[in-house]
Amino acid sequence: MHSFQELFATFNKGFDTNHFPSTPATLYEPSEYFLSIGGKRIRPILCLLGNELFNDLHEDAYHLSNAVELFHNFSLVHDDIMDDASLRRGKATVHTKYDNNTAILVGDVMLVRAYEHLQKIQSNHLAKILELFNTTAKEVCEGQQLDMDYSKMDKVTMEDYIHMITLKTSVLLAASLEMGAIIGGANNANCKHLYEFGKNIGIAFQVQDDYLDAFGDAALFGKEPGGDIKQNKKTFLLIHALEVANKEQKLALTDLLKSDGIDKVEKVLAIFKECSIDTWAEHTKSTYLKKAFEHLESIAVTSDRKKPLIELANYLMNRNQ
Amino acid sequence: MHSFQELFATFNKGFDTNHFPSTPATLYEPSEYFLSIGGKRIRPILCLLGNELFNDLHEDAYHLSNAVELFHNFSLVHDDIMDDASLRRGKATVHTKYDNNTAILVGDVMLVRAYEHLQKIQSNHLAKILELFNTTAKEVCEGQQLDMDYSKMDKVTMEDYIHMITLKTSVLLAASLEMGAIIGGANNANCKHLYEFGKNIGIAFQVQDDYLDAFGDAALFGKEPGGDIKQNKKTFLLIHALEVANKEQKLALTDLLKSDGIDKVEKVLAIFKECSIDTWAEHTKSTYLKKAFEHLESIAVTSDRKKPLIELANYLMNRNQ
Repeated sequence: MHSFQELFATFNKGFDTNHFPSTPATLYEPSEYFLSIGGKRIRPILCLLGNELFNDLHEDAYHLSNAVELFHNFSLVHDDIMDDASLRRGKATVHTKYDNNTAILVGDVMLVRAYEHLQKIQSNHLAKILELFNTTAKEVCEGQQLDMDYSKMDKVTMEDYIHMITLKTSVLLAASLEMGAIIGGANNANCKHLYEFGKNIGIAFQVQDDYLDAFGDAALFGKEPGGDIKQNKKTFLLIHALEVANKEQKLALTDLLKSDGIDKVEKVLAIFKECSIDTWAEHTKSTYLKKAFEHLESIAVTSDRKKPLIELANYLMNRNQ
Repeated sequence: MHSFQELFATFNKGFDTNHFPSTPATLYEPSEYFLSIGGKRIRPILCLLGNELFNDLHEDAYHLSNAVELFHNFSLVHDDIMDDASLRRGKATVHTKYDNNTAILVGDVMLVRAYEHLQKIQSNHLAKILELFNTTAKEVCEGQQLDMDYSKMDKVTMEDYIHMITLKTSVLLAASLEMGAIIGGANNANCKHLYEFGKNIGIAFQVQDDYLDAFGDAALFGKEPGGDIKQNKKTFLLIHALEVANKEQKLALTDLLKSDGIDKVEKVLAIFKECSIDTWAEHTKSTYLKKAFEHLESIAVTSDRKKPLIELANYLMNRNQ
């Protein structure tokens, strides 16, 4: 068994190489550029951890990890076009450094390359993995579509938001673990518990992300908080605030959403605090974490095997940056 | 055994249905819209013909056909964004009717859906088919990238153009046939001949397409010829003309490429005729067709089994519209 850090190092050793031929350079150079700027690589490590929860690491788990990381990068490259994001991991996004058309094709070939890695998986597991991978891939696209739809809508309910976040972020974390578990030979019940563990960790992570963007310590967070507030982004915090605010606070919030004043962040945060949104967010995060750990608890393997997953969850949840 | 027309009818019966769930409608309604506007459906029929060349039709050939048609539609939706095309099959393209972001995601889910159909293929053929499908998918992306690159370049050689056209158009026709043949249990040598048949038919078809766009009869062609000339599109004809023209003709052509006059098409066509480009195009098309039929000839099955493929080739090659 390996720690999260050991698996991270091993995965990177295999992944940090060229993924495409050299020509046409106009297509593959931008693809290699984006893959070379790194990232947290959480998802491929989840594949490896899912396998090792049940069995010794199998070569197939590396094929799966490569596929999942390529899929994740495909979705980032296309999302960046749609969100008009100029930076990713502190570097220029593909459509900014090159152009939109190149970025569309770069995403496309990354998705195909992901399937090339999947096809290397031995056939007795391939059918199940392909099924889950494809379902998840469509869900991730649906999540991105809903995110774009919600940005244009006046009112988004908490239920809608959680549904969108689950699709856009959590299902890939969950599926990465479960696909790893399939390779490890896990039975269906254990697979499902592991999937739910990943899904709930994902939602807890998003609550934390939204919380840190509003209340994070600038020094620890690495950037000035309030980005989401400035962009009127519908987050756990804003949606809940609009649900619990009294008439006066709601009116003030609605006015602030229309404004662009320099004290906008400060004033929104003040209302958030009046409504105890910070405490609520901490509580909500804990609720999802509790649910996640209950599912982990239900998985029928000895508890020492679960240690690396607990380590990873703690690493993600104590993140201040 | 079935004729091309019979297979076309059977395929359409299965394919003309909903391919996606109803929600999120903002993603799946545009996807169904594009699939509902039809198309020639040559590629899925090639899958079925490839299978029937060697054996009775197997259910897997239909899974394959669905996958190939979805893949083709994925590439059209993304290409239309890149080429800024407002019409496809006489109807509004996805990014025109909806928006670019929707069209990106529509293409993405179609590609994933293609793989969902592939995963239904029985495992003894799946590995070989996935390998060819993925290789082809990357080549189609490469072809589109090269097409965009060439449109910005001053000089494109005939070799470059044929390479681009092969990737962008021919390899999917070729692979559709070969993947069908794999399902039919064809051996490697027969598969390769069938692939080359499809590839060469594809190039011949492109020569014809370029020819008709310049010299086609407006009434039969269904549109005013000269579209490629107006757009300075690098075609078989223009590239060859620039290769064989004398100094004076070359100068005139180069000037015409920079102009936007109302007599541009007429003048370019006059130079094409002076250089016998029309005769050359007919000859080039025949050369590729001959190569294609030599490969078909080499396939070790009785000639009656080859009839539907010859029918299809004739249908494609006598097309005036």
